[in-house]
Amino acid sequence: MPESDATLVRHPADRMFASDNAVGASTEIVEAVARASAGGHLAYGEDAYTVEARRKVTEVFGHEAIVHCVSTGSAANGLALATLLDPWGSVLCHRGSHIFYDECGAPEFFTSGGKLIPLDGPDGKIDPDELGRAVRAGVGSIHSAQPQVVSITQATESGSVYTVDEIRALTTIAHDAGLRVHMDGARFTNALVALDITAAEMTWRAGVDILSFGVTKNGGLTTDAVVAFDTTLGTELAYRVKRAGQLTSKMRFQSAQLAAYLTDDVWMRNARHANAMAERLVDGLRATPHVHVRGTGGANIVFCHLPDATVEALTDDGFVFHHGHPEPGVARLVTSHATTPDAVDALVAAIRRAQDAA
Amino acid sequence: MPESDATLVRHPADRMFASDNAVGASTEIVEAVARASAGGHLAYGEDAYTVEARRKVTEVFGHEAIVHCVSTGSAANGLALATLLDPWGSVLCHRGSHIFYDECGAPEFFTSGGKLIPLDGPDGKIDPDELGRAVRAGVGSIHSAQPQVVSITQATESGSVYTVDEIRALTTIAHDAGLRVHMDGARFTNALVALDITAAEMTWRAGVDILSFGVTKNGGLTTDAVVAFDTTLGTELAYRVKRAGQLTSKMRFQSAQLAAYLTDDVWMRNARHANAMAERLVDGLRATPHVHVRGTGGANIVFCHLPDATVEALTDDGFVFHHGHPEPGVARLVTSHATTPDAVDALVAAIRRAQDAA
Amino acid sequence: MPESDATLVRHPADRMFASDNAVGASTEIVEAVARASAGGHLAYGEDAYTVEARRKVTEVFGHEAIVHCVSTGSAANGLALATLLDPWGSVLCHRGSHIFYDECGAPEFFTSGGKLIPLDGPDGKIDPDELGRAVRAGVGSIHSAQPQVVSITQATESGSVYTVDEIRALTTIAHDAGLRVHMDGARFTNALVALDITAAEMTWRAGVDILSFGVTKNGGLTTDAVVAFDTTLGTELAYRVKRAGQLTSKMRFQSAQLAAYLTDDVWMRNARHANAMAERLVDGLRATPHVHVRGTGGANIVFCHLPDATVEALTDDGFVFHHGHPEPGVARLVTSHATTPDAVDALVAAIRRAQDAA
Amino acid sequence: MPESDATLVRHPADRMFASDNAVGASTEIVEAVARASAGGHLAYGEDAYTVEARRKVTEVFGHEAIVHCVSTGSAANGLALATLLDPWGSVLCHRGSHIFYDECGAPEFFTSGGKLIPLDGPDGKIDPDELGRAVRAGVGSIHSAQPQVVSITQATESGSVYTVDEIRALTTIAHDAGLRVHMDGARFTNALVALDITAAEMTWRAGVDILSFGVTKNGGLTTDAVVAFDTTLGTELAYRVKRAGQLTSKMRFQSAQLAAYLTDDVWMRNARHANAMAERLVDGLRATPHVHVRGTGGANIVFCHLPDATVEALTDDGFVFHHGHPEPGVARLVTSHATTPDAVDALVAAIRRAQDAA
Repeated sequence: MPESDATLVRHPADRMFASDNAVGASTEIVEAVARASAGGHLAYGEDAYTVEARRKVTEVFGHEAIVHCVSTGSAANGLALATLLDPWGSVLCHRGSHIFYDECGAPEFFTSGGKLIPLDGPDGKIDPDELGRAVRAGVGSIHSAQPQVVSITQATESGSVYTVDEIRALTTIAHDAGLRVHMDGARFTNALVALDITAAEMTWRAGVDILSFGVTKNGGLTTDAVVAFDTTLGTELAYRVKRAGQLTSKMRFQSAQLAAYLTDDVWMRNARHANAMAERLVDGLRATPHVHVRGTGGANIVFCHLPDATVEALTDDGFVFHHGHPEPGVARLVTSHATTPDAVDALVAAIRRAQDAA
Repeated sequence: MPESDATLVRHPADRMFASDNAVGASTEIVEAVARASAGGHLAYGEDAYTVEARRKVTEVFGHEAIVHCVSTGSAANGLALATLLDPWGSVLCHRGSHIFYDECGAPEFFTSGGKLIPLDGPDGKIDPDELGRAVRAGVGSIHSAQPQVVSITQATESGSVYTVDEIRALTTIAHDAGLRVHMDGARFTNALVALDITAAEMTWRAGVDILSFGVTKNGGLTTDAVVAFDTTLGTELAYRVKRAGQLTSKMRFQSAQLAAYLTDDVWMRNARHANAMAERLVDGLRATPHVHVRGTGGANIVFCHLPDATVEALTDDGFVFHHGHPEPGVARLVTSHATTPDAVDALVAAIRRAQDAA
Repeated sequence: MPESDATLVRHPADRMFASDNAVGASTEIVEAVARASAGGHLAYGEDAYTVEARRKVTEVFGHEAIVHCVSTGSAANGLALATLLDPWGSVLCHRGSHIFYDECGAPEFFTSGGKLIPLDGPDGKIDPDELGRAVRAGVGSIHSAQPQVVSITQATESGSVYTVDEIRALTTIAHDAGLRVHMDGARFTNALVALDITAAEMTWRAGVDILSFGVTKNGGLTTDAVVAFDTTLGTELAYRVKRAGQLTSKMRFQSAQLAAYLTDDVWMRNARHANAMAERLVDGLRATPHVHVRGTGGANIVFCHLPDATVEALTDDGFVFHHGHPEPGVARLVTSHATTPDAVDALVAAIRRAQDAA
Repeated sequence: MPESDATLVRHPADRMFASDNAVGASTEIVEAVARASAGGHLAYGEDAYTVEARRKVTEVFGHEAIVHCVSTGSAANGLALATLLDPWGSVLCHRGSHIFYDECGAPEFFTSGGKLIPLDGPDGKIDPDELGRAVRAGVGSIHSAQPQVVSITQATESGSVYTVDEIRALTTIAHDAGLRVHMDGARFTNALVALDITAAEMTWRAGVDILSFGVTKNGGLTTDAVVAFDTTLGTELAYRVKRAGQLTSKMRFQSAQLAAYLTDDVWMRNARHANAMAERLVDGLRATPHVHVRGTGGANIVFCHLPDATVEALTDDGFVFHHGHPEPGVARLVTSHATTPDAVDALVAAIRRAQDAA
């Protein structure tokens, strides 16, 4: 869902519900960056911070992995897909997925012309029957792009969360047909804590081959990561990272973020907090007359129908959020590691005031 | 010049002469990043830090400009070239330039198959006569990639610095033939203070259309920037930045670096210091018997011939630097904003000891 | 619709209903190729045949045009789209169109990663309302590929034919929103004679900017053409043709085909004949009990429901055609310039026999 | 060498020395095309002509092979290189090679941004020592495009012919370093008859992995071919052919050319004749005072120094040829299967007249 073509209202901190990327970074991560500035370290990943960050990733996932810090989730997605895809291959993804809808063709750029095939399914999730048909469509025909990758977004753009069984249903269809599986985990940890399972259970154990591991939206500053559980992808991924202008010289500053994120449970705490704030918001909204909350899968995005007059009143009060997506009359309210209970309560109170006034 | 395929020796801080990207960031910039974490700010550049950083860039260059923070110099170069180049165009550049030699085909990736034509010239600088021939070669022939861009590296990979007259000689040839001019300024400020002129004089006044503006090597953490003085390139550049996975959500953390870099003369002070340390090093080496210093253009890279035994002795002492490039027997010693006079003196003393022992 | 992943049955000449590209070339065109072999002619289009072919194209279209012969319709489509599209642009096309469904990502290859957005609409035609929404979706949002081109297939893959009013409805929506219009005319002349209008009326007068002009399926040997009515596209198109390996040295052999095609009404006669054979087939099928003919727009493709037993019987009789597309139980019967009335009558008779036997 | 940016003089048949692609096709091939028009044949290569052509290729090369007819040598080269190359790979080729110099970036387009590294060497041939250095340059460095392919042009653009030993010297260096070998055989058969060896000896036995097999310049109409001796490349090559718009529907018309070319020694006879005409021309020129013939390797291109006045006089006489390449004062005279002894003698006589007049 585009952040900038919705109607945007601007204003300061504790009224910010526009996105979990519209807030700052966790203190632990900011401090880790500051500490990493000391001393000499070789560039391009030959530094101790990067070694440490990679060790931590394999530790929390319980699996060997190729790990590259990148500057955006779009870069992570593009590099992951390019590494899995032949130029004549196609990526099967949800019609509402970020890669299909919201990256201005970045996947097509990174794959030098790969094809994305949009699939339907309720609640932002790919329908397994439709996937079952899509993995077979055109297979072996020279005239058809060949299905090679399924991309699953967890949590979805709709704020819902695939269960492990739902993930495995899709990855089984994919693997049985010879396809590989990418997971776009821009809000990976929000989904993880919602399901209360391990990172291993939600990824390689469930059939995920490569992961875009979101850090920025959950407390990072300037880094996300690509994590390939299939280590044979290592060489290709490394060269693609370099060619894409994503091999940073002072990589330690990204690695320090990633390491701090995975230390002392920062990632889990941040996501639990963001989800709890979303739950608090949903509870408040549900107790508000005439407010219709659209399904939440337990992550940190809440959609609800709000009348135009209410939107206007909230805006006048300084609240910042997107509305009009995915359809007119719907507001999208995102909580984050930085959202306070007071901010949530103030938002609910403001909505009630506005509704009462109507 | 590749950082990693030379013979590398690893060791801590004040013995680091491997590269200006093998040190930390300036305190002012680290603190600015920490400060930027406070409060809510819209993502994707619609924040106050980005507005401020862009304002500062136009101020120090004295010219309107399109400014995008990116995560590496390779991304800056790739995006700049892609914006200037048609797919059937060619980029004329020095054979030893980073874009031709050291980016693993990133320019070819960003331009979707543009062609780089390597030119010769002493001291890392493009020979004007050769450029004069190259801008005419194949022009109008359907069989030939069409010369469209000249890319100048300032300071060069050889550590030399083009004078303004030398830049203008090349840009005039380029513009007269209908080509545009890109400057790869990974070490822009080192060149600027070496020439003791203004940023305007070294860029748009000298005929530069678009600049890769280096920040990381001169005290930044995780950002460089593309600066287009031709503002008609704005729309194309913006979409290319997005497609390339370089449009960051928490852009404020890059913008805060750029703004701090340009505040209170941090960029100029850092570069002056790095250059002064290089000069101190050259002075020390020149006073050392049997050490041959290869030309320095006043920036912060020093090449000198060292016998293998000396290299070994320095390595044993914990000094870190590249050698064997561009040819066997040559060491490449890079100073930075973080290099101390003591570190330089210690290096010179160690070299003398090693030479004496021989 | 893929030619090769349907169930294919092979057999000789007068039983061939698989495709209009599964027959030979018109005698006039074959003879023109033979004649063109005489004498010396400069390569790469600097020959008299090419001059003549281009003159004839502008004559029959009544408009100045840039004309390039290419070896396939996919090349024509890819080059046309690449010339109209920025890398960050999107092409709006029908979900069942050849470019979206049947070219293995050739448009994405030629455009270096452009995005094709599939639209719905009955009878193989783009629904104007859906186009109206699509041309506005994401416009101006940096996160969204920008709608830049509408591609219309005339005649459609379903065998239907857009009326001029229908074309103009789409091109008006496109142009009003700032998009350009491509027509995939693989079966251009079949549509033209079905509508009984001029080539001008069906193209530039109706708002078409660039045309893939089919020759091969209507009597040619080895050439199709790109025809750009907007002559400002000339330079870009020429370089793209070269880069794509489509600038032939002995271009005269393609140009001679194109010129002969447009001489003495060959193109019109061939298409009228193919369409008449389709009509004769439809008449025969409609008079056959239990055979359901799916809509025909007057061009040369007929879809009809046939029981498996009938398909088998026809196959045993040596008839060659695709079935199972677009859905099980449907046969696709294509007539051509080379289809004889006797062949059509024999096919109808065979179907009747098979149905009677059931 | 560009055909069109040299100074061109135009005129009819028996005075044509501009190129071997500036003449018609062999009668046998033209007749085969005409014959192939009869009857129904499935499209996209599922026809008897294609089966036969592929069989003949494997027969004359004495090796299993993947064979695809394509419309130009540039397409053959681009497809071959794309199939061998990773996007981060580099192709080592001669500075004067067609792929580097004369295809407007087609290899970069087909490879989606592969890098071509120009090497030097006398007489249009790659110097083995330079190749030996180039195959090692940057290997394993993430910053450097990785050498993956060597491309050899046989016969060269200079008209010279590699001996088998020379080919093997290069392919051994390549294979020892893990690279694959492409041969650009636009004038393959001219080289073959010059060496008087078998096609096997000049290709796979000498270490060639994939061949651009020229047909057009030696008597064909509209086809060249890619021939991969490594049949594991088959799937990738097939999809790339399709995506590049090179999978023709009426493939039989290309296959018929290729089959006729390889039947009854047409290819060998044509090349022998062209080479003999070049030899006759060289003999004539050598017997002419003040004419300096530049080296010929026995193929069908002759370079000689001619004064401007002579060029002018020949032009006035109606002779057509390129001059000014590779340097001022040099004429390039190409003979072909269609060149007559009388035409050669007339050219020599005209040169003598012009020289006498000077």
